[in-house]
Amino acid sequence: MTTIDFVTETLYEAGALARDRYADRTRLHIAQKADLNDLVTEADLAVQRQIVDRIARTFPGDAVLAEESGLGLPPEGRPERCWILDPIDGTQNFVRALFPAWGISLGFVERGSLAAGGVYFPITGDLFLAERGAGARRNGGTLSVSALDHLERARIDYDVSATDYRRPTLDAAPDLFHRVGGIRIHGCAVAALCSVATGDLEAYVHIALNPWDYAAGVLIVEEAGGRASTWSGAPLTFFEGRRSVLASNAALYDQFLPLLKE
Amino acid sequence: MTTIDFVTETLYEAGALARDRYADRTRLHIAQKADLNDLVTEADLAVQRQIVDRIARTFPGDAVLAEESGLGLPPEGRPERCWILDPIDGTQNFVRALFPAWGISLGFVERGSLAAGGVYFPITGDLFLAERGAGARRNGGTLSVSALDHLERARIDYDVSATDYRRPTLDAAPDLFHRVGGIRIHGCAVAALCSVATGDLEAYVHIALNPWDYAAGVLIVEEAGGRASTWSGAPLTFFEGRRSVLASNAALYDQFLPLLKE
Repeated sequence: MTTIDFVTETLYEAGALARDRYADRTRLHIAQKADLNDLVTEADLAVQRQIVDRIARTFPGDAVLAEESGLGLPPEGRPERCWILDPIDGTQNFVRALFPAWGISLGFVERGSLAAGGVYFPITGDLFLAERGAGARRNGGTLSVSALDHLERARIDYDVSATDYRRPTLDAAPDLFHRVGGIRIHGCAVAALCSVATGDLEAYVHIALNPWDYAAGVLIVEEAGGRASTWSGAPLTFFEGRRSVLASNAALYDQFLPLLKE
Repeated sequence: MTTIDFVTETLYEAGALARDRYADRTRLHIAQKADLNDLVTEADLAVQRQIVDRIARTFPGDAVLAEESGLGLPPEGRPERCWILDPIDGTQNFVRALFPAWGISLGFVERGSLAAGGVYFPITGDLFLAERGAGARRNGGTLSVSALDHLERARIDYDVSATDYRRPTLDAAPDLFHRVGGIRIHGCAVAALCSVATGDLEAYVHIALNPWDYAAGVLIVEEAGGRASTWSGAPLTFFEGRRSVLASNAALYDQFLPLLKE
């Protein structure tokens, strides 16, 4: 099985499981508005377990870096082949949101470089896929980032959803905050990254993302013609913990970068 | 026909028209990524025309305050009966967004006070309705705001989507920005207001909203058990132009209000 076929099948299967848990959440929500955090934790773990098992069966020996249950530490010895997984990115939105901005993210890193990745949004049914050098697709249709090159008209996701990163982000990038034409905050890295790939946003910035938040999404942006790096312009790596992330269309990357202080 | 039945039928009919235009937008987007702004302007006007015509036929003599084409000025002489309409709230999201956070908003003001209102999200099919004193409903199910009372855990839509209001908002409410547990920016007042009504968010703040952005949504929040006012705590009015808006669950309103400087 090719890598991208594996990503596709895995995400569809995991998406069905996540969708079931999401329906449980709706029932719970109506019934008592309680235990929602437990439910998302269980859903996160169940989806991760299913995907990790599939990887172990299909590609025994491959390493896995994933958000939950002890798989979050960089694997030792820089593995040749490593899967990077976020079973549910946007868990807060899974629990509470009018629009279901949460997705499953699976990237594949070979010799330190992203080779393939997919993001699936189980509720809308949108599947985003990318292979290095072969472009990015949404439900089979080719993606390209926007061509907009005017900073004051750009619309970005300026991700200060979490309290801890809010003041540091505003201190590090005040001009970006005040100058761009539009700001959105999805509270979901993969929703924002895929929005850059479709051309719905010009950029996504986050001061300290985990690799499972950005691995697949960054490849999708790059293969849609965009650019991605840390805030100092360094290539994104995957085994060194949290990284600042700028993912942008190609036309504005050189204007965004100087507005971000690492 | 009762007011609320009229709101319901009107929103469903207008939603079908908006959905058709949205499908055109998708085709245009794929074909050439051009003329999208023209398209949303046309959709806005077509939806408004249809709704204004329905009001004139069903309730001749009623005043209309609406976003487009000269209906945006407060009607003279404080009309006894006035409909307040935003044909497409969230036009930027209509043109470009992975998640369709845009909706049609129709409120009814009688003797200066909100009597009924509805918000319809044509793509998800969610219809929100409220009548003064009779509660708020989403697709028939009763709504209630969240009971969360801890500011540092609250999740709010801190609406600085538009450039002009970004610095004034941050200057006026820096502590709110930095202290709350989570921030979202939908770039769509009615999406945020309905999220407060469902309990998915604790609050929505905007420094200068037009009455058609908040009329229906504010009633939906209040009838779901929440509270709404200007940033100085004054009742919201509808014929005096832009107003600062705080719409919140009941448990946190008194904590949010002092953090907003009018």
